[in-house]
Amino acid sequence: MMIQMFEKPLGMRDDFPSIVKRKSKLSAAGIKIMEQYGYEMLQTPSLEYYETIGKISAIPDSQLFKLLDSQGHTLVLRPDMTSPIARVAASKLLKEKMPVRLGYYSNVFRAQLREGGRPAEFEQMGVELIGDESLYADVEVILLATEILRELNVDSGRIVIGHTQLLQQVLRGFGLDEKTIEKLRAEMVAKNKVAYEGLVEALAVELDAKSAIKSIVNATRLEDWEPWIDQQDDIQRALYEDMINMKSILDRNGLSEYVTYDLSFTSHMTYYTGMVFEVYALGSGFPLGNGGRYDGLMKQFGLHVGATGFGLRVDRLLEAMPQGIQQTGQALILFNEKNERTAHEQAQELRNSGVAVTLQFADAVAAQQEFSSLFSRVIRLDGENN
Amino acid sequence: MMIQMFEKPLGMRDDFPSIVKRKSKLSAAGIKIMEQYGYEMLQTPSLEYYETIGKISAIPDSQLFKLLDSQGHTLVLRPDMTSPIARVAASKLLKEKMPVRLGYYSNVFRAQLREGGRPAEFEQMGVELIGDESLYADVEVILLATEILRELNVDSGRIVIGHTQLLQQVLRGFGLDEKTIEKLRAEMVAKNKVAYEGLVEALAVELDAKSAIKSIVNATRLEDWEPWIDQQDDIQRALYEDMINMKSILDRNGLSEYVTYDLSFTSHMTYYTGMVFEVYALGSGFPLGNGGRYDGLMKQFGLHVGATGFGLRVDRLLEAMPQGIQQTGQALILFNEKNERTAHEQAQELRNSGVAVTLQFADAVAAQQEFSSLFSRVIRLDGENN
Repeated sequence: MMIQMFEKPLGMRDDFPSIVKRKSKLSAAGIKIMEQYGYEMLQTPSLEYYETIGKISAIPDSQLFKLLDSQGHTLVLRPDMTSPIARVAASKLLKEKMPVRLGYYSNVFRAQLREGGRPAEFEQMGVELIGDESLYADVEVILLATEILRELNVDSGRIVIGHTQLLQQVLRGFGLDEKTIEKLRAEMVAKNKVAYEGLVEALAVELDAKSAIKSIVNATRLEDWEPWIDQQDDIQRALYEDMINMKSILDRNGLSEYVTYDLSFTSHMTYYTGMVFEVYALGSGFPLGNGGRYDGLMKQFGLHVGATGFGLRVDRLLEAMPQGIQQTGQALILFNEKNERTAHEQAQELRNSGVAVTLQFADAVAAQQEFSSLFSRVIRLDGENN
Repeated sequence: MMIQMFEKPLGMRDDFPSIVKRKSKLSAAGIKIMEQYGYEMLQTPSLEYYETIGKISAIPDSQLFKLLDSQGHTLVLRPDMTSPIARVAASKLLKEKMPVRLGYYSNVFRAQLREGGRPAEFEQMGVELIGDESLYADVEVILLATEILRELNVDSGRIVIGHTQLLQQVLRGFGLDEKTIEKLRAEMVAKNKVAYEGLVEALAVELDAKSAIKSIVNATRLEDWEPWIDQQDDIQRALYEDMINMKSILDRNGLSEYVTYDLSFTSHMTYYTGMVFEVYALGSGFPLGNGGRYDGLMKQFGLHVGATGFGLRVDRLLEAMPQGIQQTGQALILFNEKNERTAHEQAQELRNSGVAVTLQFADAVAAQQEFSSLFSRVIRLDGENN
């Protein structure tokens, strides 16, 4: 296939000025909130070693952009920000500084195989809170995510919270083996109720166990979770109590209407080990972002501490944000050689007073009327009106 | 060679919070000035087709990061922003909108072959003014570059201006062939005076021509250029007059002390076709950025219009900028379970009043004294002092 001069690779796109402007407001607002919560912004390189970040990342190998460096090592374009930040936290930060709060606003890369599909490069913003295994760390990142939505005026933002470890414990309680649990989890992730019920139907368990396992997917309020909790099991009881505490803090922060607690909500990201959550916008098919606790990931970098965090997708936040009023403060000064000096002086004055000014030599414009129509104000110093 | 867990690819680096913070101020300031001058910010993808951007870019092939996509096409990580912006301008923008003013703040990639060398990924900010072949467009981008330096408080910023076309004409005037001219230009770019004089010595021209060609490198004031200009040659005379006009506008804008006009200043970027300039900081070995007129590049995208612009390197601007005062407004609230509610309320109040607050469950901090010492203010709600 011949590549046309103006083509871009699969899943790659140009962002035009109006989008770049909205993104820049979005990033400023998001970073402001993260910093208010004590998070420091980090920036990691676009390219990492496949051996370190590529293998550890939760993104499937088929979605990695790989290349070889001059020494024959395989590099990847970073597929997410969680593993690079874990690398930095594990390598550079001192134990005395734990817990560490790090934020990011970065592009990530996921190779696409089909035309018209998802973007192969997109921006994420989010945080990682590393070295705090308490419930309060989980609460903090959820509050922070909702605070960012509020700052961006995303009124339709909602959150669903689950708990991978508790779900695992509950399923084990029915005597299911890990392989079966994995299959059930996969259908929960896919939200494929029919397939899920089919799997449960085929299980070699009692009839009422079947019925109970089936109805896990209906436990969408925290109080609904209770029948599944084994009160004799200290771990299950403690985890459930944590969730009750979490709910009471979130409720107190005015989030009771915005948060759903779904025992069957879980993630395809295998590194999550505790509370998991997804942020979505009412009426939108795709999540705005997700997060959760991932105590396992840090261990892969040799650091035995817990971590929790989230990432929000900038492109989807932009869709969920109100459009805002288009800026129309752009002035145009058209000048000729004779008035060049006056034109420069007027432009400088206007710019100093906060007006954006395009200073344009009139003879260089072929279509003067069309060009002028792009501006809210036109000052002619080209001999036509002066 | 085994890759250690924490290693990064050659030339790749992490930016720590203090750097990210300074960069974010730098980008906001730069974008503000570009917008004041009527430039609209554009963002292009990190990956482009080798066939379109890779081949056209002025960056040598050996410095391109190349990879194959799933369809077997060669992709490159963008090595500069000028060619992607030319691609967008040529493909999408209407002729009625010309001249078009586009700005960018983007990372670019240049593969490095040695350890401890230059960064393989760095950020640039700059503009392209496309569709205006007048002197005033060249003046505008130089003024804009100096305005950005001023906004960033880079007092040491200086500019050297040359003219590739005029230099070419002058050298041709001595009857030199293109190949010889190329060799001479290469030594001018390398600023290798000894090699340059050696080349001139070996030329088959008259003795006073040799002496004249040698002393081109000493023409570092605009009035010094005059002896080389052939007044009978309309092109040379017009180009020189343009330079005189440019100088008078720049002088009027207070830049007379900051700008040098060097007839021998030229660029290794082969796409420049007219005025070229370099921005540097007094006492620094590397240029902060460079720019110039590149009417040839747009033709490669099928658009027969002139263009001019510049790019500044963010890492070098950061070095040239005053360090500024470190921010120390970060408060810490350490809380226990009993005071969790009060802690959340106090944090929210402080954040609402503009203070950045780290809210931390005390039991999750192993080294409380060291951790607390990172903050300018510590509020204890963990039962120790209350």
